[in-house]
Amino acid sequence: MTPRGVKTNKMPEKVSGDHVRLAALGGLEEIGRNMSFIEYKNDIVAIDMGLQFPEESTPGVDFIIPNVACLEEKKGNIKAVVITHAHLDHIGAIPYLMGKLGNPLIYTTRMSRAIIEKRQSEFTNAPKLRFQEVKYGDKFKISENIELEFFGVDHTIPETIGVVVKTPIGNIVHFADFRIEYNEAGDPQGIETFKRIGDMGVHTFMVDSTNAEREGRSLSEKVIEKNIEMLIKQAQGRIILSTFSSMLTRIAEIVKIAERLGRKVAINGRSMRDNVLIAKNLGYIKTKNKDTLIAVEDINKYKDSEVLILSTGAQGESSAGLMKIVTGAHKYVRIKVGDTVIFSSSVIPGNERGVQTLKDNLARQGAVVFTSSIIDIHVSGHAMKEDIELVMRALRPKFVMPVHGYYFMRFANGQNAVAGGVRPENVRLMDNGQVARLTKDEFVVANETVPANYVLVDGLGVGDIGEVVLRDRLMLAQEGMFVIITTVDRKTGRVVKNPDIISRGFIYLRENQELLDEIRRKIRSIFGRIPHHQQVDTDYLKALIRDQVGQFLYNKTKRRPMVLPVIIEI
Amino acid sequence: MTPRGVKTNKMPEKVSGDHVRLAALGGLEEIGRNMSFIEYKNDIVAIDMGLQFPEESTPGVDFIIPNVACLEEKKGNIKAVVITHAHLDHIGAIPYLMGKLGNPLIYTTRMSRAIIEKRQSEFTNAPKLRFQEVKYGDKFKISENIELEFFGVDHTIPETIGVVVKTPIGNIVHFADFRIEYNEAGDPQGIETFKRIGDMGVHTFMVDSTNAEREGRSLSEKVIEKNIEMLIKQAQGRIILSTFSSMLTRIAEIVKIAERLGRKVAINGRSMRDNVLIAKNLGYIKTKNKDTLIAVEDINKYKDSEVLILSTGAQGESSAGLMKIVTGAHKYVRIKVGDTVIFSSSVIPGNERGVQTLKDNLARQGAVVFTSSIIDIHVSGHAMKEDIELVMRALRPKFVMPVHGYYFMRFANGQNAVAGGVRPENVRLMDNGQVARLTKDEFVVANETVPANYVLVDGLGVGDIGEVVLRDRLMLAQEGMFVIITTVDRKTGRVVKNPDIISRGFIYLRENQELLDEIRRKIRSIFGRIPHHQQVDTDYLKALIRDQVGQFLYNKTKRRPMVLPVIIEI
Repeated sequence: MTPRGVKTNKMPEKVSGDHVRLAALGGLEEIGRNMSFIEYKNDIVAIDMGLQFPEESTPGVDFIIPNVACLEEKKGNIKAVVITHAHLDHIGAIPYLMGKLGNPLIYTTRMSRAIIEKRQSEFTNAPKLRFQEVKYGDKFKISENIELEFFGVDHTIPETIGVVVKTPIGNIVHFADFRIEYNEAGDPQGIETFKRIGDMGVHTFMVDSTNAEREGRSLSEKVIEKNIEMLIKQAQGRIILSTFSSMLTRIAEIVKIAERLGRKVAINGRSMRDNVLIAKNLGYIKTKNKDTLIAVEDINKYKDSEVLILSTGAQGESSAGLMKIVTGAHKYVRIKVGDTVIFSSSVIPGNERGVQTLKDNLARQGAVVFTSSIIDIHVSGHAMKEDIELVMRALRPKFVMPVHGYYFMRFANGQNAVAGGVRPENVRLMDNGQVARLTKDEFVVANETVPANYVLVDGLGVGDIGEVVLRDRLMLAQEGMFVIITTVDRKTGRVVKNPDIISRGFIYLRENQELLDEIRRKIRSIFGRIPHHQQVDTDYLKALIRDQVGQFLYNKTKRRPMVLPVIIEI
Repeated sequence: MTPRGVKTNKMPEKVSGDHVRLAALGGLEEIGRNMSFIEYKNDIVAIDMGLQFPEESTPGVDFIIPNVACLEEKKGNIKAVVITHAHLDHIGAIPYLMGKLGNPLIYTTRMSRAIIEKRQSEFTNAPKLRFQEVKYGDKFKISENIELEFFGVDHTIPETIGVVVKTPIGNIVHFADFRIEYNEAGDPQGIETFKRIGDMGVHTFMVDSTNAEREGRSLSEKVIEKNIEMLIKQAQGRIILSTFSSMLTRIAEIVKIAERLGRKVAINGRSMRDNVLIAKNLGYIKTKNKDTLIAVEDINKYKDSEVLILSTGAQGESSAGLMKIVTGAHKYVRIKVGDTVIFSSSVIPGNERGVQTLKDNLARQGAVVFTSSIIDIHVSGHAMKEDIELVMRALRPKFVMPVHGYYFMRFANGQNAVAGGVRPENVRLMDNGQVARLTKDEFVVANETVPANYVLVDGLGVGDIGEVVLRDRLMLAQEGMFVIITTVDRKTGRVVKNPDIISRGFIYLRENQELLDEIRRKIRSIFGRIPHHQQVDTDYLKALIRDQVGQFLYNKTKRRPMVLPVIIEI
């Protein structure tokens, strides 16, 4: 349990001769925005191109994506972009970045391709993407020096791939997001493949740290499905089952279970419909009867006991399917007494309040609600401590670079690596943008860094929201603003008009006339002190107004709105 | 597990004759802001007066407190304010509300009184409070018709009291916040008291729902303390232990353990210092050696293995003790390699990111970090399912009114009550402000409601932040604002000056000159269309500018800043 012995060492910078450059452009200080690259001479392989959802410190922003400036400079060298699976934290930045990078060839599976293409089609100015579809076991020699070999890993969406990047200095293995599935006898699945990769020799293992702090091993997805089946069997009325639309493996299974138990499945929510359609086209969702999947508007043609609605909105998102049903905004569905609502999902931090409101309202309207805190109906798609140790023993990597997660998680994953037989001095905890140089025998974290800051997407703007704008948004949210417009005669410096005041998010003006009058008097007195006929120094006066009115408002209210003085000279 | 059978029934409104009015003014749709009252003829007993911390929907607000308008009207009738324990969600609104309510007598324990008085002293205009100190078992006849009897319950702060409000229609029992402590043999403690209260007959039981959804029963505080002791024993270097400063029961125990293991205890953080001082004065924190408690500035006089720093800041709050140490802002303490940091706390929803950053930085600086997800070093102060069932069986209440928690939690608590022998039709799930009328045999939720909306405290303002201000803050945070000041000649209606523009939280003006030029042209063209020498209809023009500039900005950026047009007529 003691984390000592895991080193964040910085070795001498220079590595002469043959070496690989390796860096993460995102995913090391956050959950999301996963992207890294491996460079050998004139060849670059990028792995994933994800987005991150906005945080408290980035209000109003749509997404956060990686900075790819260091790759743009060498875009001609990008021989492959490997996309491990089609979740937004791995594909979400593609529409914003592929154009900048010269639209290099994407290596991914058929399933991921379909989802990426669907999303790309929603961006009118984004380029048409080029793909090399890959299957488990495929090998591609992408240049004189680099070969890629793909293999399957278990995750919550079909066709998730890991990759072996074979370079002259050794094999670098990236495991995507993964979990270990255990069969009923408790035996881990897929380990033979990992042993075979281990037998080829692993120089560096880039490993998912999302659940690295969690004790134990993954609960089998089969257990989850069995519990969901039990709940569906028990229910007398309709079932509304809400899960992440990206968990296509489970969704496919739920459709199968529903059909077996004689229920039609109505898909509710756009992303759910899109994904189910893709999974159906690719044969992942198969139904025996061709009318098992029905339109939501048709649910009333069936008895309640014959209906299962598969819905988005398990996070309490205000615009998603389930919330629409609860608030009465849905065109065809309302909650009624006797409905069973199943949340096959976890609550993403930050969404607690929304989910609480959703559950409250469902219960108020008479639904029976099941969440994963009541019964095991959700399991994460990420490996836990024992799973990771198991993989370490199969792969036997020389170096381990934990990816996907905050420092503390990656630190914990370093300990998992050590528990799995890796030498403590061979764990590398890097930062986003830190460049490592890999030789046959070494993995040296160089002093070199490349830009890896947040690039913010807001509306049509990519990267135009900077720190100033964010800081202003945060300030405005806390205390609001107070604009004072003073009109003065340019020649005399006299105030020619009662100052105009706009207050938003601070106090409600109509209820505070006295305060306003005092401020107007204050403004007049500030200007009154200027000697007659003197040139007006507006910058000085603005600073004066900002300070004095700011202080006055603070004394009166103990609040500090953003005070914005404007002087109109006429 | 099925919630059916628990009814939110609204029975006929009128209850004639002798009855008690009962309502909660807060605490039923939230965690926090706990307050309720019981009224019989001309006597009112209020129970608790808590605050709630701000939410995502109330940016910039300091606290949320109950609306007591309905009690203000009858303040002369308030015979007692019972304060169950000295946590902010039960005492936090006292400085804001007691003056309005005519400063009625507070019934509470010595410990709670000390903490309440300390806090009150920080509010210069708040009245000096009047107290009746109570001990477990005390009875007070507060009027002809009402008697109060107090008893102890187990919680995370000493001297937490429950109360039996004895009225002519029956006994109403309020259990404060509580948990059940089990001895080493696994026997629940304090049940005899509850049975005795049950023997007196319980008309209505108002019961804490915070953990009503959680399966099982409370882990013993003793287990927690044993684990903390083990970690302290193991550590070679300094220990920094962070917990809620309000968890005085555990804090007292930690001081004892530290002393036993030969460590000095330095208290870090203002609220921790205040609370420890109070607990020490009241004899709850006892040390054998008088130099066990040391000042933080003296820690370097001792060997690292002799020091334990007890600190605030386990939630990653930016201004609290632990964060100051980590960021280098602390005057006397820095993290060093070999420090052990123990988080004896849970993460309050909304604080995940702050706690993550704190853990990341501690680990980066070389500390060994233990959290309650690694080892049991924290347990909640609220009863879980089995605990609640146990209490139901001891009390045997006729009616149960779950309090403290969102609807879903209270709903779950209704099920716990039923599992504990209460008739399903006797569970009452009320809303804040809903008034119940209790007769000897009934608990009728009347159609009557009293105001129970959020009252927002922001700086010196109490209740002056309304929906408009909050909505503006939320909008400003999302998209920022855009002020356009146009100066026109009153007589000709012509624009006499290039329009001034202020943009904050939207785009950075210096980098967007072209956009600004286009907007200025747009403004001129809007005014240019006014026939010459016509009276300027500023309201109409402002609406026009708001719409047209808003639409223009949206087309250009897909963002919708708050557009604020100002027209200065000269």
